[in-house]
Amino acid sequence: MIQLYWSPRSRSFSAIWLLEETGLPYERVLTDITTGAQKAPEYLAINPMGKVPGLKDGDAALGEAAAICAYIADRYPETNLAPAATDPLRARYLQWLFFSPTCIEPALIQLFTKLEVLPSTAAWGSATQTFDVLDAALQKGPWILGEKFSAADITIGSGLHFAVRMFKMVPARPSFDAYLDRCAARSAFQRAEKIAAG
Amino acid sequence: MIQLYWSPRSRSFSAIWLLEETGLPYERVLTDITTGAQKAPEYLAINPMGKVPGLKDGDAALGEAAAICAYIADRYPETNLAPAATDPLRARYLQWLFFSPTCIEPALIQLFTKLEVLPSTAAWGSATQTFDVLDAALQKGPWILGEKFSAADITIGSGLHFAVRMFKMVPARPSFDAYLDRCAARSAFQRAEKIAAG
Ligand SMILES: N[C@@H](CCC(=O)N[C@@H](CS)C(=O)NCC(=O)O)C(=O)O
Ligand SMILES: N[C@@H](CCC(=O)N[C@@H](CS)C(=O)NCC(=O)O)C(=O)O
Repeated sequence: MIQLYWSPRSRSFSAIWLLEETGLPYERVLTDITTGAQKAPEYLAINPMGKVPGLKDGDAALGEAAAICAYIADRYPETNLAPAATDPLRARYLQWLFFSPTCIEPALIQLFTKLEVLPSTAAWGSATQTFDVLDAALQKGPWILGEKFSAADITIGSGLHFAVRMFKMVPARPSFDAYLDRCAARSAFQRAEKIAAG
Repeated sequence: MIQLYWSPRSRSFSAIWLLEETGLPYERVLTDITTGAQKAPEYLAINPMGKVPGLKDGDAALGEAAAICAYIADRYPETNLAPAATDPLRARYLQWLFFSPTCIEPALIQLFTKLEVLPSTAAWGSATQTFDVLDAALQKGPWILGEKFSAADITIGSGLHFAVRMFKMVPARPSFDAYLDRCAARSAFQRAEKIAAG
């Protein structure tokens, strides 16, 4: 049985949403970060960073929210959350799967701390560039890969949901609103929101 | 034929190293970032971020160095650079594949800009935490997954090579030195270094 280590109101959200999308049986193991549970040695064996989320699936264990999404989608192809390795969509799928930790997260840090970094050096360019590129990519829809909903929508949708709707650090745009409305209309997203609220 | 869009002395290095490891035929397309070639509309169709590296493989196209590594390793399983989806090592493989953009890169930005962020909030904890975790993970070796060399060694090895040996932003440690020596002893790494020098 898959075990998801999570804490309320945290980056566990995307992993919960993903697991709710799959319909796979899984157990949520509360790892309350306000009590330091994420630094217990048994948990560090699952995620050496001592952070949530973390996942155990038999002998497999890992941390990093986007990596957890990637893992489940490939390990359980019947959940239909990832284009197959031979599907040309696979390339964009992977690009967007990495986009959330690589670009959206540092862009938010930059907005939050007013960090100045040369856009040609910064992995995310700049906050403006990151959200402009996302805006353009979401024009067509309904999903980031077009017609196909995938785990990349879960990482991108979670990142954008935090940025635009929860922390209101990024001004809404029509493409973001339409996309986030589509995400929020999914029953798995709604269940995840309730669970993540703790 | 796979086409790799690259520029000398840039984050293209990991993608070049990976392709050199595979033995697959590929074409390198110079996209000189000092001339703005990375912002040409034809290139933005490959990587909408207008950055190198970018990859085209038939109808598949993507940006993001780590995503390119993930793509090639899964698309060409005969290159033996990724544990299969059902292999328990797959979980750690994905965690470490994401670790370079998610943790090593922002840790270097933090060292470079003296950025202050709460470790419990920062995706990478802190620069100290990121490199301590890597240090512990590399104690055993020879590779990040143990005996198996994988694309995760290419993203981790490239990140660490930049951090420790090229930019000397992170003090060497015995585990880093031993690991980087093993990376540098690979003929594909050596070819990639020559190519990336331009
Ligand atoms: N890169 C990690 C970041 C995870 C992370 O920073 N989680 C926070 C909660 S949102 C945490 O566990 N903080 C507690 C701590 O660092 O002690 C991921 O994407 O999963
Ligand atoms: N997140 C990207 C970052 C790529 C990146 O920032 N590349 C730099 C060179 S190291 C670039 O193309 N800079 C030129 C520009 O942004 O115009 C990745 O990992 O591939």
